[in-house]
This record gives sequence, C-alpha cells and structure tokens, in this order.
Amino acid sequence: MERKKVLLSEDEIPRQWYNVLADIKMNPPLGPDGKPVSPDMLAPVFPMNIIEQEVSSQRWIDIPEEVLGILTIWRPSPLIRATALEKALGTPARIYYKYEGVSPPGSHKPNTAVPQAYYNKKFGIQRLTTETGAGQWGSALAFACSQFGLECKVFMVRISFDQKPYRKTMMQTWGASCVASPSMETKAGRDILAKTPDTPGSLGIAISEAVEAAVSDSSGKTRYSLGSVLNHVMLHQTIIGLEAKKQLEKIGEYPDVVVGCAGGGSNFAGLAFPFVYDKINGKKIDIHPVEPAACPTLTKGPFAYDHGDTAGYTPLLAMHSLGHTFVPPPMHAGGLRYHGMAPTVSQLVVEGLLEPKAYGQMDTFEAGMLLARTEGVIPAPETNHALACVVDLARKAKEEGKQKVILFNWSGHGLIDLGSYEKYLSGQIKDFEFPAKDIEEAEKILQKYPKPQIMKSR
Amino acid sequence: MERKKVLLSEDEIPRQWYNVLADIKMNPPLGPDGKPVSPDMLAPVFPMNIIEQEVSSQRWIDIPEEVLGILTIWRPSPLIRATALEKALGTPARIYYKYEGVSPPGSHKPNTAVPQAYYNKKFGIQRLTTETGAGQWGSALAFACSQFGLECKVFMVRISFDQKPYRKTMMQTWGASCVASPSMETKAGRDILAKTPDTPGSLGIAISEAVEAAVSDSSGKTRYSLGSVLNHVMLHQTIIGLEAKKQLEKIGEYPDVVVGCAGGGSNFAGLAFPFVYDKINGKKIDIHPVEPAACPTLTKGPFAYDHGDTAGYTPLLAMHSLGHTFVPPPMHAGGLRYHGMAPTVSQLVVEGLLEPKAYGQMDTFEAGMLLARTEGVIPAPETNHALACVVDLARKAKEEGKQKVILFNWSGHGLIDLGSYEKYLSGQIKDFEFPAKDIEEAEKILQKYPKPQIMKSR
Repeated sequence: MERKKVLLSEDEIPRQWYNVLADIKMNPPLGPDGKPVSPDMLAPVFPMNIIEQEVSSQRWIDIPEEVLGILTIWRPSPLIRATALEKALGTPARIYYKYEGVSPPGSHKPNTAVPQAYYNKKFGIQRLTTETGAGQWGSALAFACSQFGLECKVFMVRISFDQKPYRKTMMQTWGASCVASPSMETKAGRDILAKTPDTPGSLGIAISEAVEAAVSDSSGKTRYSLGSVLNHVMLHQTIIGLEAKKQLEKIGEYPDVVVGCAGGGSNFAGLAFPFVYDKINGKKIDIHPVEPAACPTLTKGPFAYDHGDTAGYTPLLAMHSLGHTFVPPPMHAGGLRYHGMAPTVSQLVVEGLLEPKAYGQMDTFEAGMLLARTEGVIPAPETNHALACVVDLARKAKEEGKQKVILFNWSGHGLIDLGSYEKYLSGQIKDFEFPAKDIEEAEKILQKYPKPQIMKSR
Repeated sequence: MERKKVLLSEDEIPRQWYNVLADIKMNPPLGPDGKPVSPDMLAPVFPMNIIEQEVSSQRWIDIPEEVLGILTIWRPSPLIRATALEKALGTPARIYYKYEGVSPPGSHKPNTAVPQAYYNKKFGIQRLTTETGAGQWGSALAFACSQFGLECKVFMVRISFDQKPYRKTMMQTWGASCVASPSMETKAGRDILAKTPDTPGSLGIAISEAVEAAVSDSSGKTRYSLGSVLNHVMLHQTIIGLEAKKQLEKIGEYPDVVVGCAGGGSNFAGLAFPFVYDKINGKKIDIHPVEPAACPTLTKGPFAYDHGDTAGYTPLLAMHSLGHTFVPPPMHAGGLRYHGMAPTVSQLVVEGLLEPKAYGQMDTFEAGMLLARTEGVIPAPETNHALACVVDLARKAKEEGKQKVILFNWSGHGLIDLGSYEKYLSGQIKDFEFPAKDIEEAEKILQKYPKPQIMKSR
C-alpha cells in the first residue's frame, strides 16, 4: 500500500508559534500624524494582550493550553503526498500538501480565530466584530466565538454575501450575526452606499465598517478582529508550517519549493514563515506567494505606506498595495480580493526572500479541476491559485527532469464554493484584466503618504 | 492539554472487512417466481466479483491494496471525544464520535463507493449508474469513479436535486452526470411522471431508474451501484467500526452504547456491526439504529419481503419496510428517506440484537445546533438523528449518575446542507406526522409477497 499521509499525534503538536519579526526589520505602522503608532493608540480596536503580541519581536511564543485544546478538534492537520497528481502530470517532482480543509469551517482561518477569541475573552471582551470576504474568515471567527461564548458580528463583502448565501447560515448556526457590507449600520457603509449604491463591496470597506462598529460601542466590551494582514495573525498561522516541517522530517524530506495563495497573506505566511526562517539561516529554497492576476498586489502594487481599510480608519502600514480605494473585480476567489498585503510578507518580498507569482482565474479553475479529479478533494477557489503555480512547477520539473520536492498549502476545501465551480463548468467564468491605469491611480493615492524605508535585514 | 482525538496511522488501518453474514441466518432474496435468486440472475445488474461478495459468508474479507490506497486519502478517520458536549450537558457519560466528515465528499459513503468502483473496473465495466437521495451517495460514487476512470450517471431524488443544487455541481466537478429523478430517461421515470408529475421523488423511484439504465445498456459495459441496503455495502462500511474499536482499545475504553442514524442502514452498520459481533460473543452492549419518526421503517414497518425499489425491478428482500410505494414526506434528512432497511440490520432487529429509535425532525435539528455550538462541527441532517439519541442517552446517564461510554457515528458534515439549517433558523422546519394508515397500506401491499421466516441465529 502506497503511503499517502503523514500524521502527527496531538502530543506532537507544536507548542510555540514562530514570530518572523525576530528575524526581519520592519517599517513601523504610522498614525494620522505620520508618527509611529503607540500600542495605546490601538487599544480601542484590539485587546492589549493581542497588541503586545502584534509588536513582540520574541522569536518563539507559547501557544496557550486552552487554545491547543480547541485546535486539536482538527489539528495536527494531515500532510498528504499528491501521488495521483504526480502520476497525472508524469512529473518526477514529489508534491506534498498540507491539508487545512479538515477544520470545522473548512479552511486555515480558525488557526488564528481561536487564539484571537481566547485572548479577547481573557481580556474581558464580550463581543467581536469583523469583516469577511469569501466567508471563510467570518465562519472561522463565528466558530471560535461560539467556543468561548463571545458574541460575534460579521460584515460580509456584498458580492460574496450574494454569491454564497449559505456562508451566512453557517455563521448563524454558530450563533453569529452577519450583514452584507457596505451596510447602513455604520457611517463608513452609509457614505459608500450614498456614492456607489451598486458597489460589490470590498474587504477594505468591510474592515472600515467592522472597526467602526467596534470602536463606537461605548460599553468598552467590543473589539475588532482581523483575519489576515497583521503580525499576530501571521504568527498564529505558523502552526501550519511548523507541523509540516515535523511531518516532512518524519519521512526524511525537505522542500525545494514552498507555495501558498496570498490575499492578505495569512495562509501563505502560515506555511511559509517557518521555511523563511530556514532560508534566512542559509537553506536554499524557493518560496512563492501566489495571487490573482486581477488583484496583483505583490506583483504589480508599489511598496508604500497605505491604510488597511477603505475609509482610512486603520494606521498606515508599509506594504505592497493597490491603493486602499481599489475595488477588485468580482472574481470567485473572494478571499484574495484585497488591495494590500501583510506587511511581513511585503517586507520579505522587498528583501528578495519571496518570489511572488500571479495567475488568471481560468488557469486557477483548470488547476482546481485537475486536483479534484486526481487527488479527489475539491479545492477552495483561493487554493486554486496555489495549485496553478504547483502544476506549473511540476511540469517544469518534468521538462528539466528534476526530482524537486514541492510543498503547498491546501488552504481550504471548496464544498461551500460550488457555485463558482457551477459557473466554471457552464462556461461563465472569464479572466479579468488588470488595467495599467489602476497602478497609476494607486500611485497617485499613495504619494500623499510617507515613503517606507527600503530595508534589508542582513 | 485535554486530549480530543485518537488517531491511527495508515499502517494501523484494518486490512479486512467484517462480514456479519458469517454470524447470522438470513432469509434469501427471492425472484419474481418466489424462489431464491441465483447469483447469475443478478449478473446484468452487478459485476460477478461483487455478487460473490454479496452472498459470501466468510467472516473476514481482505480489503484490496488498491482500495486502501484511495481510502487512505482520508482514512483512518479520527475518533473524537465530545468533551464540550459532555460539559454542556453536565453528563457523567464519556461520549466518543467517529468522524466520517473528513472524506472528500464529506460523508461515510466513499467507504463503499471506492471498493465498488474498484471491483467494477476490475471486472471490465466502464460505466456505473446509481441513485442518490440527499446527494451524499451520488457525490461519493462520482468521486470514486473519477479515481478509477469510470463514467458515472446519477439519478437524484427530485426534492434533494431542487433543495441542493450544488450537489449536482460536486458530482460534475468529479466528472459525473446527474439528473433529477423521476426523469424522462427511463420507462420507470416516465410512468411515474405520467401519474404524478409533481412527485418529490423517492429513493425507491431513483433506484428503479438507475437499475433500468444499467440493465438496458446493450454494450454490457454498464452496471448499477447501490450505496446502502445490500450486504456488500454493509461489509465495506465495517472499516468504520473496526477502526473505532482499535482507537477505543488504545485508550482502554469500550462502549456501553453504540448509536448511528439509519436510512438504508450503511453508516449505522459500518460502526455497529463489529460491535454486534462482540455482542453475539457475549459482550453487554446496547446498539441503536436511529431513524426519522416520519419514515419509521424499523420502529413501525413490518418485517416482510419487499422490493428495494418502487418499480419492483429488484429481487424481494426480507426487511423492515413501509412498502415500496411509500413516498416519505419532504424532510431534510434526504439520506434517511427510504422505505426499506438493510436486510442484515432488519434481521438483527428481529433477533433482538438492536434496539431501534425514532426522532422527529425538530428534535434532530435541536441536537445538531447543540453539537455545532459545542463540538464545533456542523453535522449533516442525517447525523442529527444519531445526535438526538445521544443527547437523550447522555441526559439519562446524568439522571442515573452513570458513567456510560457512548459511541456514535458522525456520518458526515452539514456544510452542503446549510439550506436546511437556514430553514431551521428561520422557523420553517416542522415535524411531519406518520399516519397509522400508512402502515395499513404497507401491510396491504406487502401481503401479496411470501412471508419471511422469523429466524433466530442462536
């Protein structure tokens, strides 16, 4: 019998997260005055224990026992060798994927939703607000809040809200409430609806609404929770890569290439950062964040200071950005429709430690179909971006006759995204062009902010 | 850290299925002439290697290596202790569930779809036809066929086809084709549509269509595949219970009670039969198949000879049945809308080895919501029937102060059944009554067939 999976027992689960801030220099977040933001300034938005984690430069941070107790509902997640894909492609590459679809909401997102809910609860918070794109994050936070008895309010990007009605049901089943964004419940939402009543919405807008809903609650018991981009989110996700490393070690493997799709950066960082650590320490390894060609933050967006949200409520973050007013086309990988990118991921691109790639929607669905019919699992449309890159790499390995070891993050299953497969199968999916003028516009918006330093950590 | 899961490595996967036919006496299937059906008579419907398995009384049957190679995409499945549920109920019971939602289509169904596709392929068959209720089985066979390069045609009960459009997409993603049943593609379908154009359909009707589509293909390369009821299907599912036993042994536990929901009987049998074997050999253990109160095959249906399908194409099987023309109400547990029950499960009820239970739809959704908000996983509406029984047992254990060990089968996740949760959350779900006259009608239909012997195996 061919061995497909490498499993870890619960006793082997990593007990610490890896914090990449210990190993790279970063431009600090800036406030409205252009000066670095102090932790206090973030206190209305996040609880102080999370803020401390956000700015910590300690390399290894303990995972609380209570968090592990919930993560182990589904973790450690399996590492699976994609033997059927290898065979179908006739590639000498050995392809492994870390399968995050086993979590209750079906994606990697609860890896950070659970600790965030835990830290908020510990800090005395009773209610969390958040935004969601495709719905993966909103579902994950709803799940995590139900585990800790917190209330949860989700602003869901309108296009996904309409395309995926059952996402709302999922959040409600876990006790959360969910509204389409932009909504009439916040000033940010009302302003945008007044100007563009037909907007499909965007993550940037939904973040503005969720932040406003948190800070405007006078009880002081509400905070905001973000599913990607920020340092503490990347930190929590590193459990993926730390597990994968242990699993590969068990079978005497080490990757030549690491691949993950990148919207805000969290599933990519989760798998990749522990390998970035090795690369910093001399390992030869290629690491690819993969984004949609129609939202090419890393491959075309300038590295600049920009807001994380559309209304400009968040501090300025040094990151690759298409401008905080950019509204991506209504493609089906809702989780990758974000104008910016995690500052840590952006900084690693600046340092030349990562090589970003971009793929069009059609290529990604083709790859997803191939994986569904070989490996048997239907991938989330976001995951399909990683797959398109992996298929390319595997074909290249075949051409070159190289036995490369490829590791990628299967960030979630596509069982709640079947509407997009329905559209693909009935010929209703197309590629969206990213016009050059969008970059010009981004540069115009971004020029009013300070320029980040181009730093090299070594 | 509290330990949630018990995992097995791939090396620990059971290498043989348990065949309950070695341990019980059965009434044979009868042909139209009232005489036992010979294997040859089934040859147009099933390949001979499966027919041999159907009638085998060998206790342990080897699982082919090629089958294990695919099952290990997700198997062994985890055994999880429902600590959060226990806490919420304040019960002294220790509750474990075998989680079958980790398979690519999200249920236990591929446990038999994979070996069935394998045996058909080995026998030279190129195309399989089948029926599906909720869509779990159709998706599973589509998945299995894609793994072996077989064509797959699915007749899906109309009410589920309409309620769950993405199930069709899932099957298509795996390369299968899917039509609503009754359809105009078969004589059975056309006859029923002529009489009752608005019928919601039933598994019995869909089986008639799928059997007809298989036997009427003159190439001889098409066969029919059934997802439940038959002996070989129960056999293949026993991998669930065999794994669960190993997992419980690892932590020094043995169940006092085993619970599974029962439509045709396969997920129930899969978990329960290896424990039935122990019970036959002297272990004290309660075993409950749980069915919908609106389709009370085991709790109200007579034990009789009846057809497995509505048109009467199949042999007469000795089983509990509500009559092969019974069309269950349009409740949301589509996988439990079947007029009959596996002959093996029925015989075990006759022998007093199983104690069936029935629950109304509202109770089952309440239990499902409780599990979603405690254990974190949203269950399939079918699984909710097992849950309603488990919650009752756990409460009873609390009243009695007994540390019972309860084991149940979490047959699938509900992520593709969120439409039914949406209806529940918006107050559109109700209990359906099962009128006494339906039993009278069943008895009228069934009286024209021979009576099965009431046998006791020991």
